[in-house]
Amino acid sequence: MLDVLGNGPDVLKDAHSRKQKESTVMHVSNEDATKAINAARKKAESLKTKMCIAVVDSGGNLKAFARMDDAWVGSIDIAIKKAKTSVFFGMATGLIGGLSQPGKSLYGIEHSNDGLITFPGGLPIVDDEGVLIGAIGVSGSSVENDHKVAEAAVKVLGVSDVPEHPWRT
Amino acid sequence: MLDVLGNGPDVLKDAHSRKQKESTVMHVSNEDATKAINAARKKAESLKTKMCIAVVDSGGNLKAFARMDDAWVGSIDIAIKKAKTSVFFGMATGLIGGLSQPGKSLYGIEHSNDGLITFPGGLPIVDDEGVLIGAIGVSGSSVENDHKVAEAAVKVLGVSDVPEHPWRT
Amino acid sequence: MLDVLGNGPDVLKDAHSRKQKESTVMHVSNEDATKAINAARKKAESLKTKMCIAVVDSGGNLKAFARMDDAWVGSIDIAIKKAKTSVFFGMATGLIGGLSQPGKSLYGIEHSNDGLITFPGGLPIVDDEGVLIGAIGVSGSSVENDHKVAEAAVKVLGVSDVPEHPWRT
Amino acid sequence: MLDVLGNGPDVLKDAHSRKQKESTVMHVSNEDATKAINAARKKAESLKTKMCIAVVDSGGNLKAFARMDDAWVGSIDIAIKKAKTSVFFGMATGLIGGLSQPGKSLYGIEHSNDGLITFPGGLPIVDDEGVLIGAIGVSGSSVENDHKVAEAAVKVLGVSDVPEHPWRT
Repeated sequence: MLDVLGNGPDVLKDAHSRKQKESTVMHVSNEDATKAINAARKKAESLKTKMCIAVVDSGGNLKAFARMDDAWVGSIDIAIKKAKTSVFFGMATGLIGGLSQPGKSLYGIEHSNDGLITFPGGLPIVDDEGVLIGAIGVSGSSVENDHKVAEAAVKVLGVSDVPEHPWRT
Repeated sequence: MLDVLGNGPDVLKDAHSRKQKESTVMHVSNEDATKAINAARKKAESLKTKMCIAVVDSGGNLKAFARMDDAWVGSIDIAIKKAKTSVFFGMATGLIGGLSQPGKSLYGIEHSNDGLITFPGGLPIVDDEGVLIGAIGVSGSSVENDHKVAEAAVKVLGVSDVPEHPWRT
Repeated sequence: MLDVLGNGPDVLKDAHSRKQKESTVMHVSNEDATKAINAARKKAESLKTKMCIAVVDSGGNLKAFARMDDAWVGSIDIAIKKAKTSVFFGMATGLIGGLSQPGKSLYGIEHSNDGLITFPGGLPIVDDEGVLIGAIGVSGSSVENDHKVAEAAVKVLGVSDVPEHPWRT
Repeated sequence: MLDVLGNGPDVLKDAHSRKQKESTVMHVSNEDATKAINAARKKAESLKTKMCIAVVDSGGNLKAFARMDDAWVGSIDIAIKKAKTSVFFGMATGLIGGLSQPGKSLYGIEHSNDGLITFPGGLPIVDDEGVLIGAIGVSGSSVENDHKVAEAAVKVLGVSDVPEHPWRT
């Protein structure tokens, strides 16, 4: 391995100790993701459901995840895909599902992006300044319940109404 | 490689020689999976069909599989995916298929989990204590026949009615 | 769709209202997974690192995940794959990595199971009764730090020494 | 759906009731695959190991599979990939592994075919007439034990020495 590639035992250790600047909000923070998951769990319990809950950042990359005990194993991937789908297009997954039906304009969109889920349960998270900072995806019950639990989670962080561009994506 | 992280040719040989405890039922056993496959094969023969038969554990991981002579090669993956789909959601695959039609609430769910199969032929296996211990998937004929063969297999091990939570998933 | 195969909008809502029994330990619980992630986060902070932390159950299915702010996006998948790799073989990922080097007995094993990660940072979680209940995977710094953080997480739940069979896998 | 495509409820039911001819040996039969798996299981028990055992036909398609209780979950895919790798190239997996090391002629071949496994434990099955009828893959212990168990399975059906072409693949 060439030295010019900076390879060596110190590279990884030093990666986090470089000069930093004050962060501006761009993504949902780990603290906020935890708050959202806790709110979702509480709502799920009040509905007597067992949910998988996923939070992704504005790039669609997983930020936090929790599977409640006895939740469907098949809901792990669905919750993550709902969150991704929602942030990928800045809208509730159910809205995309309306457009992806046979004969509609986005028919078959689920084949993109290694698989989308376009039924309800995924919602964008938009902060006070109108920035799309991530999304939440919930799966484990009826789509109505999934949606309610996602709504309860978004409410602690902001709203789901995505403004016009720019979104900082 | 650090010494504290261990390493060496004896690791795999020694992995099986540590302290043990009595096992309790958690998943369908290899013996039970074999019984289920034999019952499925017998039923398939009585229907003059050639089937692929898959048994997965409660985590969706393959436990046993058999392809009868002259069964469709394309049914291998379908049988495995039916078994996975059934255990992922604790219900008969046909139930999910009813909800995943265009315009229904779970339209497009097949795009999750590296591919689901949502037509009949997959059934959960629930033991005497109400524990979801795995699932069976059958493919190779009409969905009616696939379902009948899966039912014959489940019957030798338990039932397909998944109880209320907890499921130990 | 055949009537005998059941189907309808009430299926998902009713799925959770059947007979139930008392649960016994089989997998790491959501509560324990949260404890493990919190312990890992605390250790990561003491090391001034930013980590991705994943917990899987004994079937390799994701139970909980957290990405600390400013952690590498590329570490998301590595943390999850380390946890899976560790539970798949009931041992620390670093042990497998020692055997998968060129010329060693398991060279190329990383190509299986949709990708394994075989350097340190993944550890099995074994409970007081010697049951393999899951695994943790940590990624975000040097492998030495990743391993230390994983160790701190396992310590709050049990040990990483997998006993002789049976493991209930 | 057009009638000329033969679509309808009777298509699947009739698929297996057409005129047939006497079969000539081309693939390992389901009966033989079961024999091979039973021989492998017996050998694995004598070695006090827990194995995953896969049998594929001469096209590399899964014919039969068994996971012994408490075998590594990660060995499911490795056993299947060893069987496929072996039949794909008509040789023991360990032979390919010798050629896929860094600097050798087949370096990186594991990246093909959705993943190969090139360490020992996969063996071709060749019948009395010198026809390559399938392969077996075994995973769950050291590669030496995996290989011994695969050998015990092949012995009940034929040999592993593949003749010169034609192989009927």
